Amino acid sequence: MFQLHPQLSNDCEHIGRFELCELLLMRDANYPWCILVPARADITEIHQLDESDRLLLMRESNYLAETMAKLFTADKMNIAALGNVVPQLHIHHIARHRNDASWPAPVWGKVPARAYTLETLARTVMQLREALRVHLKSA
Amino acid sequence: MFQLHPQLSNDCEHIGRFELCELLLMRDANYPWCILVPARADITEIHQLDESDRLLLMRESNYLAETMAKLFTADKMNIAALGNVVPQLHIHHIARHRNDASWPAPVWGKVPARAYTLETLARTVMQLREALRVHLKSA
Repeated sequence: MFQLHPQLSNDCEHIGRFELCELLLMRDANYPWCILVPARADITEIHQLDESDRLLLMRESNYLAETMAKLFTADKMNIAALGNVVPQLHIHHIARHRNDASWPAPVWGKVPARAYTLETLARTVMQLREALRVHLKSA
Repeated sequence: MFQLHPQLSNDCEHIGRFELCELLLMRDANYPWCILVPARADITEIHQLDESDRLLLMRESNYLAETMAKLFTADKMNIAALGNVVPQLHIHHIARHRNDASWPAPVWGKVPARAYTLETLARTVMQLREALRVHLKSA
């Protein structure tokens, strides 16, 4: 039975659900930073998913990356499945800009998370739901 | 016309070629660290690949990750497409261990690369070619 890892629930805002993945927004206003979590129990690696789930993940990841790149006019998308701390499989999708807080370094461990204002958080969530509405099953 | 980015050539050992990707080994003995580079010109993001190349990349990435996880008895695979410094699309596949130099942090910017001895480099390249031989077209 799939349950979102408590640290992901705690650090993120829930945006909605794709066919396979839960879509989260990391509460760090330094970067537009989404996370896909395949809603499958006891999976820590992409290659542990079955073939049809791998395909869904690839499609959802590409759709999310392409949409974020446009929506946030990213200079580069950073996409990563790490999971050394939170083992539940989750894939980071971060829209990077040449003038962001950590550029050109990867975002992890570089600068502390910056809190969103409530207004900016609400606007970002709404922008994402609107931009991704074709494939978001619920929001 | 595809040409491997000079920084990737410079930092890596060439292991072989899959149907879509060149397979490289990063010369950093801190971690078993492979890189897949789709042999397509002028691509910086996974979502810029066409549908059939996306499928090939997914298969080659999963095959590589699963093989590395077994070969190096990894505690966790770290898989990432960053490219803030080297824009040519390349996907890191790093076998992580709980006692490695940067655990549990991501590897980038944590500790300096550690040189391989020639013997260990040669052995690692041969182990990878042997373990991946079913899908490596040339080595």
